[in-house]
Amino acid sequence: MSDLRGGIDLGGTKIQTAVIDTDGSVKGEARRATPTEGTPADVATAMSEALVEAAKAAGVESADLQGVGVGSPGDADEKTGVVSGARNLPGWEGSFPLGETLAKELGTTVRIGNDVQVATEAEFHLGAGKPYDSLIGVFWGTGVGGGLMLGDKPWLGRGAAGEIGHMVIKRDGAKCPCGRHGCMEAYAGRKAMEDEARRRHEHGHKTDLFKLMKKHDKPRLTSSIWAHAIDHGDKVATHLIERAIEALGTGIASAVNLLDPEAIIIGGGLGLRFGERYMDDLLEEMRKHVFSETMPDVKMASLGDLGGAVGASLLVSH
Amino acid sequence: MSDLRGGIDLGGTKIQTAVIDTDGSVKGEARRATPTEGTPADVATAMSEALVEAAKAAGVESADLQGVGVGSPGDADEKTGVVSGARNLPGWEGSFPLGETLAKELGTTVRIGNDVQVATEAEFHLGAGKPYDSLIGVFWGTGVGGGLMLGDKPWLGRGAAGEIGHMVIKRDGAKCPCGRHGCMEAYAGRKAMEDEARRRHEHGHKTDLFKLMKKHDKPRLTSSIWAHAIDHGDKVATHLIERAIEALGTGIASAVNLLDPEAIIIGGGLGLRFGERYMDDLLEEMRKHVFSETMPDVKMASLGDLGGAVGASLLVSH
Repeated sequence: MSDLRGGIDLGGTKIQTAVIDTDGSVKGEARRATPTEGTPADVATAMSEALVEAAKAAGVESADLQGVGVGSPGDADEKTGVVSGARNLPGWEGSFPLGETLAKELGTTVRIGNDVQVATEAEFHLGAGKPYDSLIGVFWGTGVGGGLMLGDKPWLGRGAAGEIGHMVIKRDGAKCPCGRHGCMEAYAGRKAMEDEARRRHEHGHKTDLFKLMKKHDKPRLTSSIWAHAIDHGDKVATHLIERAIEALGTGIASAVNLLDPEAIIIGGGLGLRFGERYMDDLLEEMRKHVFSETMPDVKMASLGDLGGAVGASLLVSH
Repeated sequence: MSDLRGGIDLGGTKIQTAVIDTDGSVKGEARRATPTEGTPADVATAMSEALVEAAKAAGVESADLQGVGVGSPGDADEKTGVVSGARNLPGWEGSFPLGETLAKELGTTVRIGNDVQVATEAEFHLGAGKPYDSLIGVFWGTGVGGGLMLGDKPWLGRGAAGEIGHMVIKRDGAKCPCGRHGCMEAYAGRKAMEDEARRRHEHGHKTDLFKLMKKHDKPRLTSSIWAHAIDHGDKVATHLIERAIEALGTGIASAVNLLDPEAIIIGGGLGLRFGERYMDDLLEEMRKHVFSETMPDVKMASLGDLGGAVGASLLVSH
């Protein structure tokens, strides 16, 4: 057996895997698009294929790994490895024994954790969060997830803490993919933004977003499609990103007013793509609502796209 | 010297004092209306007069107390006893050495803490919060303050945590007494509600609120005036209380989505007056926004009007 560990970040858009040594260095990585159709078993197959590829890149078999950690959306039960209600994944409204399934396919131990929490802990221990004792990780992607580190420790509440994307920023506001109204995610989540872009397009607003999606053969409006459209002055795309930044600034400020943390770490697909570019707007929006005279530091996640997979690998104990 | 301790709760509407024995039982109490005009020194005089009266009721002189704790609004510096920016109090935009001033007048040690945090800790250790490891105290009064107990410990952030009243529930919404827009307190704080009632009255909406205020010789719309008006079917009063409950439910749900605590404890002048009566509406509003399937328990503060003063007395060590 090697001393390498595997990590899988199961996102709504892509599956990112990595194989990591004891120092936290990445020795191999691979990714797959997250299946948009099928069943949880199909998603599990794509996950194990990607992990096998990452292991190969690191020069080992998956069965030689110390174990594999998975950062999963939905309700991830760390004890049983069962994942329930992962609504951004195909056919995953119910429960699926993800840990057990992957363990069979990979021939090694598999540990399941919450995707956002493992990414937050990765940034806290190895990334942009290292200088701080308290922080909120904000992962802006298909949805908007949050992870909390308070006084050097994760705060999970009764298991469901960190749902910053479902803090209400506008009572009676836009409908959220979660079914509620006025959540931050209803304005800032990639999926909600795509739905709103489609509505505007159908109502005659001129936008190249869907043309670009077809041209680049994407099943959805990925962060690169949004970036492309904005770079070409697409008004709908520009307005919707600015609207998302306003929502993020408002919701993050609300969280800051409640918790007064030292830092905010911005990650996620859209976060990594647009966080730096719109940082001044985000800070300006936060300043409108932050009650304390002292703003927290706002930093970009430094482990980038691999943060989730690296964080997931930390679930495997040495 | 006796083994009694004093506690003073400095509120925007009234000053509540209590003298407490080692078991936490109240041996004497007294209150004063908070001066609406004058300087911080005038407020300090009213505070010490009330505490002297409470001590007398307990059969001691204030100088015989182990010490006196104060729960103060604004920015209360525990180390220096200086209180700054207590905007709901007359002439208190700047800093005032409250601890030192009271210590001279009372002839005993004085400790200063944050009003909402001491009330939250009182409920956590002695009141409705005893069964729980994590809770949010929500004090609905002149403003809306919050206190956090997470994993058996207070969470203060960098010193400014708990500002639940300034979580944004409606971006671009109503103007808050703090100067920002859309805060929960802009809809639910007693002061904001009074301002809005006055605006509606001036715009020709029929209401008896201000008539009742004059009749009962009150300088402001106290919780009893609101109760009186609602009991008599006053439409403006009823609508504004319902609007406040909606705002509270929305903001508390946002906080729950972020922290997933075991319980919410509702206190404060308006909270104690209306919490029980509107509990079903509050829970219904929370359920609209709470993301987890498991709602926290929502309980009324059980130390009642005296919770702040009892909590303040806990600042004095034995």
